[in-house]
Amino acid sequence: MTYVVGVVGGGQLARMMIPAAEALGLDIRILAEVEGSSAKLAASEVGDYRDWSTLRQFATAVNTLTFDHEHVPTDFLHRLVAEGVSVQPGPDALVFAQDKAAMRHRLSSIDVPLPGWSVAETVEQADAFIFDQGGQAVAKTPRGGYDGKGVRVISSGSDVSDWLDAGPVLMEQKVDFVREVSQMVARRPSGETVPYPLVETIQKDGVCAEVIAPAPHTTPDHISEAARIGVLIAESLDVTGMLAVEMFVTSSGDFLVNELAMRPHNSGHVFTEGAITSQFEQHLRAVSDWPLGSPTLRHPWSVMVNLFGDAGNDRIQQILDYSPLVSVHAYGKAARPGRKAGHLVVSGDELDEVLALARAAGAIGAASA
Amino acid sequence: MTYVVGVVGGGQLARMMIPAAEALGLDIRILAEVEGSSAKLAASEVGDYRDWSTLRQFATAVNTLTFDHEHVPTDFLHRLVAEGVSVQPGPDALVFAQDKAAMRHRLSSIDVPLPGWSVAETVEQADAFIFDQGGQAVAKTPRGGYDGKGVRVISSGSDVSDWLDAGPVLMEQKVDFVREVSQMVARRPSGETVPYPLVETIQKDGVCAEVIAPAPHTTPDHISEAARIGVLIAESLDVTGMLAVEMFVTSSGDFLVNELAMRPHNSGHVFTEGAITSQFEQHLRAVSDWPLGSPTLRHPWSVMVNLFGDAGNDRIQQILDYSPLVSVHAYGKAARPGRKAGHLVVSGDELDEVLALARAAGAIGAASA
Repeated sequence: MTYVVGVVGGGQLARMMIPAAEALGLDIRILAEVEGSSAKLAASEVGDYRDWSTLRQFATAVNTLTFDHEHVPTDFLHRLVAEGVSVQPGPDALVFAQDKAAMRHRLSSIDVPLPGWSVAETVEQADAFIFDQGGQAVAKTPRGGYDGKGVRVISSGSDVSDWLDAGPVLMEQKVDFVREVSQMVARRPSGETVPYPLVETIQKDGVCAEVIAPAPHTTPDHISEAARIGVLIAESLDVTGMLAVEMFVTSSGDFLVNELAMRPHNSGHVFTEGAITSQFEQHLRAVSDWPLGSPTLRHPWSVMVNLFGDAGNDRIQQILDYSPLVSVHAYGKAARPGRKAGHLVVSGDELDEVLALARAAGAIGAASA
Repeated sequence: MTYVVGVVGGGQLARMMIPAAEALGLDIRILAEVEGSSAKLAASEVGDYRDWSTLRQFATAVNTLTFDHEHVPTDFLHRLVAEGVSVQPGPDALVFAQDKAAMRHRLSSIDVPLPGWSVAETVEQADAFIFDQGGQAVAKTPRGGYDGKGVRVISSGSDVSDWLDAGPVLMEQKVDFVREVSQMVARRPSGETVPYPLVETIQKDGVCAEVIAPAPHTTPDHISEAARIGVLIAESLDVTGMLAVEMFVTSSGDFLVNELAMRPHNSGHVFTEGAITSQFEQHLRAVSDWPLGSPTLRHPWSVMVNLFGDAGNDRIQQILDYSPLVSVHAYGKAARPGRKAGHLVVSGDELDEVLALARAAGAIGAASA
């Protein structure tokens, strides 16, 4: 029998797992939220993962269950594990990607560098943290935030009184960083762990816009420290599949862990063309407990640029017409302002040239801001 | 509306067009011969392409019609063209991939080097050609042969009397070649033509077993002559999509055109990992008349090795366990002796190492001959 991987969620990450599943000879089944999803080609079922019977029926018919996103309730996942389903990553790991406060607590107990942080339950507690931080802090809702949503830079606890009415708020030091990086790590249940080369991520308005692989401005010590942090988190939290550790780099060159994602991640799209093993193939190999592939880069430099708003046929053709060196990935989504609709990758020997070409191609057909 | 490419045939070539269609944001629909085909993920229909109403219904609902194989009757394709369907490659080109005698006639009128050839309708005519060739020749059925089928090395016309009973037989010089190469070319209907780097193909028992990109033992003159031949054939025969020109290299270093294929081809699988633009993506771009991509190689050397017989989960896992540097492509086929069930690709800086690793990986789990 062919091994079956089930993916909860029909977004672009599930879509980009399809080619990897085909190459490996795995059967992939996707539980999509809606008809016509990004991953519709392998969407064997359309349903609500928050409905226990829908999720259970889907999960018990696959060999391994994994995810396009981190939103599946962990109590459901615990019940699936109790029923013998292989859930990768498991709920005891996934909770740290769902709940940023739980993540801060957990990471504080292992040897990884963190920004200052605290959990505030009242405006007064938030004010006290802000005072300690010199008048400014970053407030985050522990759950549900992404791409800049659920994040506010505040100078008074009253700025998040609405959030505090709903529950505790994570307060974090506003880090004075010089750049942001992402360390990706693959880990399989039986223990093999493979860190990817560190990449630099360039955010615009809290959303990842560009990724450079490998991260420029790094030393061998930097690179090994980033890999150490990534592997330690993967092992300590028992993460399986792909883990993305987003980090700040301070002016003194130190890393501070910002966010975790336990799935293929926007910062790893660059590896599809840029590395021997794409993050999508690596994720499927890891969650299936198959041998992991090499993360070795194919080129001195690769750059990924997100395509926001629209990646329909017309824009894609314009981009391809601009340069034969550009590889595109459209997500099959209807155009909508600001939406991540696709991405492109350019590789080459000179970073300046690669970056300039990727940016110019990404600007073609882009809606003016 | 999203552009729709329809593919006749559900084999591994159609299967490997699926990731390319997803990346480009094209809708791909496949008319497969059977349920459970290699390309089942996008098999929107199962039916017989030799049935006019089945083919017509499928073809008239897509923006461009293309092929996984060359077997669709050209009279059907002429009728589709007359109805306004964009058939790529068109029947006037495709006939030269279907009928080897027609191909020899056509290529004799343009400036490309061919082996000696003749069409025999009787045993006596076959004997006369064999005599001219010094006692041995290669006989081919003009239609239907592939992977060594429909080909015999003969020393007497009576060796093909069974074939002659059914119709004319193509007689060709038995070329004393030192190696075989394949020149792939992409061409779009509006005329843009992109030749790929020449590759060497290594056949076993008349079947492609290994491909090396770029072809070793070549000079710049060789490379430009191969590209000239490929581009001339593509333009002269009005081929669209991918064209593979298989050629012999003689001991004096000359090329002689052996076979043509007008679709992605086994000798081009190496470009998926080895080049900026895979042959599957290039084919879809070409038949859709979209801008073509760069064929530039990502690595000094890439080697493809076919996996015969079986590429099921167990064998694939063993291969991946052997080396993290191996990329695999399983075709989702049931195991059967001698069947092309998948392939693998290894890339790197040193040909000896890449070739040794690819061969060793390909031997893992292989049935003993």
